[in-house]
Amino acid sequence: MRTLTVDLGDRSYPIYIGSGIRQNKALFSDAIRGKQVMIVTNSTIAPLYLDDLVSVLGDEYQVDTCILPDGEQYKTLATYETILSALLEAKHNRTTTVIALGGGVVGDMAGFAAATYQRGVPFIQVPTTLLSQVDSSVGGKTGVNHPLGKNMVGAFYQPQAVVIDTDSLKTLPARELSAGMAEVIKYGLICDASFFAWLEDNIGPLMSLEEEAITHAIYESCLAKAKVVAQDEKEGGIRAILNLGHTFGHAIETEMGYGQWLHGEAVAAGTVLAVDLSWRLGNVSEQDVARSVTLLQKANLPILPPQGMSREAFIERMLLDKKVLDGSLRLVLLKALGDAYVTSDFSIDDFNACLDDAIEAASASAP
Amino acid sequence: MRTLTVDLGDRSYPIYIGSGIRQNKALFSDAIRGKQVMIVTNSTIAPLYLDDLVSVLGDEYQVDTCILPDGEQYKTLATYETILSALLEAKHNRTTTVIALGGGVVGDMAGFAAATYQRGVPFIQVPTTLLSQVDSSVGGKTGVNHPLGKNMVGAFYQPQAVVIDTDSLKTLPARELSAGMAEVIKYGLICDASFFAWLEDNIGPLMSLEEEAITHAIYESCLAKAKVVAQDEKEGGIRAILNLGHTFGHAIETEMGYGQWLHGEAVAAGTVLAVDLSWRLGNVSEQDVARSVTLLQKANLPILPPQGMSREAFIERMLLDKKVLDGSLRLVLLKALGDAYVTSDFSIDDFNACLDDAIEAASASAP
Repeated sequence: MRTLTVDLGDRSYPIYIGSGIRQNKALFSDAIRGKQVMIVTNSTIAPLYLDDLVSVLGDEYQVDTCILPDGEQYKTLATYETILSALLEAKHNRTTTVIALGGGVVGDMAGFAAATYQRGVPFIQVPTTLLSQVDSSVGGKTGVNHPLGKNMVGAFYQPQAVVIDTDSLKTLPARELSAGMAEVIKYGLICDASFFAWLEDNIGPLMSLEEEAITHAIYESCLAKAKVVAQDEKEGGIRAILNLGHTFGHAIETEMGYGQWLHGEAVAAGTVLAVDLSWRLGNVSEQDVARSVTLLQKANLPILPPQGMSREAFIERMLLDKKVLDGSLRLVLLKALGDAYVTSDFSIDDFNACLDDAIEAASASAP
Repeated sequence: MRTLTVDLGDRSYPIYIGSGIRQNKALFSDAIRGKQVMIVTNSTIAPLYLDDLVSVLGDEYQVDTCILPDGEQYKTLATYETILSALLEAKHNRTTTVIALGGGVVGDMAGFAAATYQRGVPFIQVPTTLLSQVDSSVGGKTGVNHPLGKNMVGAFYQPQAVVIDTDSLKTLPARELSAGMAEVIKYGLICDASFFAWLEDNIGPLMSLEEEAITHAIYESCLAKAKVVAQDEKEGGIRAILNLGHTFGHAIETEMGYGQWLHGEAVAAGTVLAVDLSWRLGNVSEQDVARSVTLLQKANLPILPPQGMSREAFIERMLLDKKVLDGSLRLVLLKALGDAYVTSDFSIDDFNACLDDAIEAASASAP
């Protein structure tokens, strides 16, 4: 097991990464403050891991469970209210601990419920997807979607601990493993060229879930994100670089309707757009673009926007994105491979050409 | 105008108190960070003060408004969602500022929306009721009710500034003025015997809204609360003394159904119960009890529980209250007049006798 501490002063917390560690009771009991626990999970994860976790916790606690429907389309205020009602119906008080057992959707909603139940109770994350292990484990972002925009409602709220059992990746569908790999690759692109090169060398073992490789990739990803977040907890500045590919990606997700493209898939296609725009600005080489595309492809990720999505659709969707400050479009781009920055300093011609070329390529690739 | 700074490190903010200060544009523009403003108010306050505030802000900002139905029964997740939708429909971004114009219900809901819209945007409070001026102005509590409990969902979130225009009390119904006075009296009881004595001497001028008296009472109340909150922002310890009368009071409000008894009315009756129990423990004199009852009566407040509310109803309702920690009932009581503490050290006989005597007195006072 490897342990990483996310350093946020009095809100610091440990991330544990290893095989089979969901059976390690001490990791949970060290983080639980009272005598009540509410495990929030979903209908896919519950049959796989819920009984395990309940018996690990044992008789010491009042353990209740809340099983949500599975899917991004349920990441709504209505589902959030379901969690709150479950807490109230089981008479959970201010010292209860919420455990999120599942992927990013479960973690975001359970975290938002923990952040706002009685104005905040402790919570523990047990992320079961690669995406949530490398993304939601660090940063304290919680929340739900609104029909008018993704993640528009939520709070910054830190967990007491994160328990990442790499065994849970063995039951993860291949498409979701790839989606998580998009974020892993992103960390290399934004802040660590040598990790990017390591990924190029190890993408085979990673995709076949070799234990040592996957633990290393998760550890390095969490470490990269923790370093950025420690500098900027509330996303005022540098933290925005974590959104490489996300502004384009959110536009794709919103346009397609939640749940059609996985978040990581949209981020992958968005990342290619961002790297391509960085090349048009003269920041990175054609070879850097090719390396990025190749690595994403080896992770079985889309590298083009959805067929039929127009430039106008991108622009309309991007204007409601949170990275838009007072009307001027700011994007995360690369200064170099392994070094991202946030800028609104690019020409609209380059921006349009980047989108148009990708849209044309997507159209040409139609079956 | 008097100014008080609530000292919370990098979340410190000013409270301005004075006659007509809602016309002072600088108080607002100093606290607004971006170019967008959403004023949240209700259908009672909007005809009185909304146009004023919109024109004070002027053309410099994109000003949108969200008018909620008036009443505690609308302090729900559904109304909260109305505010979020208004923000999204008018395309407000992360730099928008939410202004809460109204009483505690508007402030709590607008504050919770501000705390959670895009994971938190700035907000300004313009409290128009005495209760919200002396209670919600300090402490950062925001939230909504749930059918299973009051204020069960919310966040701690500090405003950028609070603008208290004492003129708005002139349009406040007499019953609501009294309800606010219950909280003013509470500050004397819990931490300032000399302020309590000042209130005894000035209750006449206060009830007739004499400018100097009311400004002083609001200032002293906010100051008292700010001192307590500065020691304990997240309500882990001493802050609980602010809840004198509230555990009993919440039981009354919940039992009667939201909106039947005003919050301050329930707190007044609850305060008498708490002072009475403090006397049974030998902490305060019979005269202290009489002084408390007399002052609350002069403020036209109820001093007995609702007729027909049983001891069992109190106990059942109090067990879901947030002050209940892991099953043992903790109450805010007085060590002396002007000195409150939190304790679970009282006999169940004294507790029952306190409730039974009050219930009998309420029954005997039936018309």
